[in-house]
Amino acid sequence: MHFELTKEFVDRLQQLIEQKSEKEIQQLLDDLHAADIAEIMDSLTMEEAKSIYLLLEGEKASDVLLEIPEPERKKFLRELPPEIIARQFIEFMDSDDAVDIVQDLDEDLQQEVLNEIADIEHAGDIVDLLEYDEESAGGIMAKELVSVNENWTVATCLKEISNQAENVDEIYYVYVVDDTGILKGILSLKKLIQNNTNAKISNLYNADIKSVTTEAHQEEVARIIDKYDLVALPVVDSIGRLKGRITVDDVIDVIKEEAEKDYQMVSGITGDVEMSDKVWRLTRARVPWLMIGLMGGIVGSQILGLYTSALTQFRGVALFIPLIAAMGGNVGVQSSSIVVQTLASGSRNIQSTSKKILKEVSVALITALIFSTLIFAYNFFVNHNLDLTYSVSASLFIVIIFASLFGTVVPLVLNRFKIDPAVATGPFITTSNDILGLFVYMHISTFFYNIF
Amino acid sequence: MHFELTKEFVDRLQQLIEQKSEKEIQQLLDDLHAADIAEIMDSLTMEEAKSIYLLLEGEKASDVLLEIPEPERKKFLRELPPEIIARQFIEFMDSDDAVDIVQDLDEDLQQEVLNEIADIEHAGDIVDLLEYDEESAGGIMAKELVSVNENWTVATCLKEISNQAENVDEIYYVYVVDDTGILKGILSLKKLIQNNTNAKISNLYNADIKSVTTEAHQEEVARIIDKYDLVALPVVDSIGRLKGRITVDDVIDVIKEEAEKDYQMVSGITGDVEMSDKVWRLTRARVPWLMIGLMGGIVGSQILGLYTSALTQFRGVALFIPLIAAMGGNVGVQSSSIVVQTLASGSRNIQSTSKKILKEVSVALITALIFSTLIFAYNFFVNHNLDLTYSVSASLFIVIIFASLFGTVVPLVLNRFKIDPAVATGPFITTSNDILGLFVYMHISTFFYNIF
Repeated sequence: MHFELTKEFVDRLQQLIEQKSEKEIQQLLDDLHAADIAEIMDSLTMEEAKSIYLLLEGEKASDVLLEIPEPERKKFLRELPPEIIARQFIEFMDSDDAVDIVQDLDEDLQQEVLNEIADIEHAGDIVDLLEYDEESAGGIMAKELVSVNENWTVATCLKEISNQAENVDEIYYVYVVDDTGILKGILSLKKLIQNNTNAKISNLYNADIKSVTTEAHQEEVARIIDKYDLVALPVVDSIGRLKGRITVDDVIDVIKEEAEKDYQMVSGITGDVEMSDKVWRLTRARVPWLMIGLMGGIVGSQILGLYTSALTQFRGVALFIPLIAAMGGNVGVQSSSIVVQTLASGSRNIQSTSKKILKEVSVALITALIFSTLIFAYNFFVNHNLDLTYSVSASLFIVIIFASLFGTVVPLVLNRFKIDPAVATGPFITTSNDILGLFVYMHISTFFYNIF
Repeated sequence: MHFELTKEFVDRLQQLIEQKSEKEIQQLLDDLHAADIAEIMDSLTMEEAKSIYLLLEGEKASDVLLEIPEPERKKFLRELPPEIIARQFIEFMDSDDAVDIVQDLDEDLQQEVLNEIADIEHAGDIVDLLEYDEESAGGIMAKELVSVNENWTVATCLKEISNQAENVDEIYYVYVVDDTGILKGILSLKKLIQNNTNAKISNLYNADIKSVTTEAHQEEVARIIDKYDLVALPVVDSIGRLKGRITVDDVIDVIKEEAEKDYQMVSGITGDVEMSDKVWRLTRARVPWLMIGLMGGIVGSQILGLYTSALTQFRGVALFIPLIAAMGGNVGVQSSSIVVQTLASGSRNIQSTSKKILKEVSVALITALIFSTLIFAYNFFVNHNLDLTYSVSASLFIVIIFASLFGTVVPLVLNRFKIDPAVATGPFITTSNDILGLFVYMHISTFFYNIF
């Protein structure tokens, strides 16, 4: 029912490529969806992938191009002359996809490709869309849509839709506009089919619709489409004129992209990597955060260095360094993750910041109490060392409170200053809390061991 | 253009609730989407929320019910008699939504509610759907769809669609079946509108369609809808008979759910919590993983305890405990996250497991080399302590290699045994690597300090 990529299939294909059996390869690829062909190409060497790509024709070739991951696509486009890009790819694409491709080109090449597009209207759409910010509603919308005038009848509409629909893959909604192009509402095809051909559109359309302006951020677009379970969302300019539409498939990509970004941050990976990436790319994605960890470790060693005599004199103190550091790190990551997830879910929490922090303090107090009691009991009954028991317990209590607050406040502050709060999750929080924890622990231990 | 929840709005509403101004509240809520009303209720106390909910009528009330988060919904339903649940909510819902509600009820209540549903066909649909696993295609599909016989003409179809469409919110595709109910293909409304009324369906429909069987896992459904940019996916039984359809809005929920689950795992949170949740719920979500961290810390202290004399005799060894532990933890989380993300993306990587591990070893070797060289240089030039320089460098090298392998192999093995590999990210990996790191570090230090 749908294609499953297997090792056998790839082996067979590689054999055919080696034998240059073009006809058989074409037969093999003919029934496949563009997304499947791109997946197959991803499992081949660059040379093999190119050789099968060149066997594709027309719309299929441009569909596959859109499914190839960006870095490879860029490399590939760089080797093609502008007239090929314009006439064999751009002409077949919807305006939003065409913009994605054109945007990836170097500036000189961009202009040349635009000049080569034969359909002036299509070229105009692309130029219009290039004006918008890449992450705005304008930047992800397509110009292709079906719109009808509110003064028309059902019969005129049906005829007009048949004409306009040539350029639109799927009609989900028909948009209703007035004479000046201002969006008035939507009309479902169901309604059109169910009504008399003489009925006037102005009596049929649904005026209660959701829309966004071209400046809206793509995350806002995703939030609205998701919240109201829409399949497409119309985009209007500042005075309400219909400019384009965004479909749900583009929004799924936005949702996945945002979720992946947050996941990478919390796990200390820079950039979007997969196991199938090159060794060098995988390494590069991991070094930056580890560098922060190394720096943190060195600072930690310097802090401990200040307490060298305490570490050798006070029996048992060194043993609980990892526990204090780990708990501080874990608590901090938990707190910051909850903040980041809450902000990302777009839930409009109207609690004031002070109330949020107060709540976090309550959670921290309970958590700190639970774990400092547990470690108190452990040290009291197992280690029989009072100095150590007090030191570790008190330190853990303070470290959990500090780490919670730190993990909550830092992302909230970043968010206030429009910086992605996810930056504050993962190694950054862990490292800061490690250092803070060591300092607190050694300071408190010195205090308790000197008292008793 | 769409509703924005503000503090002013909530204040005003609370005032109206206190004054019992029912008419004004109804006016305020009348134009709002069910999703907005649910969001508003989330910002009110339970009592306030209930008082405005009871003002809603018919379909609106059941739409809002579906938008209320599960825990609150359960609590709410428990207080209602079965006939109200059946007649005021279930009757208005699509079968997939109705199943979600019925599933949440206690078993006795389930049966009573089913008996109270007046529309026997609707009740039958719900009973059918209850048979499927909650996370399977059958469990998330709706029975409501528009299907036509391949032998009909366009005219018959249009009439039939008008009839069937009564029960379907939106028609995205019309499904074409043969006399035995086996799915043959799909027909776009666009095609229907564009063609002559005498044309036969069998000549118009598109037979090249994607479908899943009722047993397919919801993640597989999400992967297909996302990959092929679909708006709805038909579900068939094992011999290909059309059983239902899954729409893209349900799939967005699946995608977000899966991403959130992975995010929570890596950040050590149990369950789906938000900052607006109660203190107790927030605490409970954080304690389990911290418990693992505490246990790990205690085991770590016992390992260090075995080396008490080394820790006091060997100058500087204690200072680098946090560095070794932190680096091991960070590397492990990175490795396991890349595995989890790759598996979650559903990219069908046909590389063999041994090749994956070999690649990870290469990445680990380069990373280990970089960081052990850096820390070698630091200790050599800053700390002027050869024993320490060798010990820390060699330990860090080994710890990075071990942590990488551990972080890669554990999730792969879990996945092989059909256990969610995300379990292996976060505190579990960090803790194991902390312990392993300490052991390696102390062992190697003892070795070097004794040699020189």
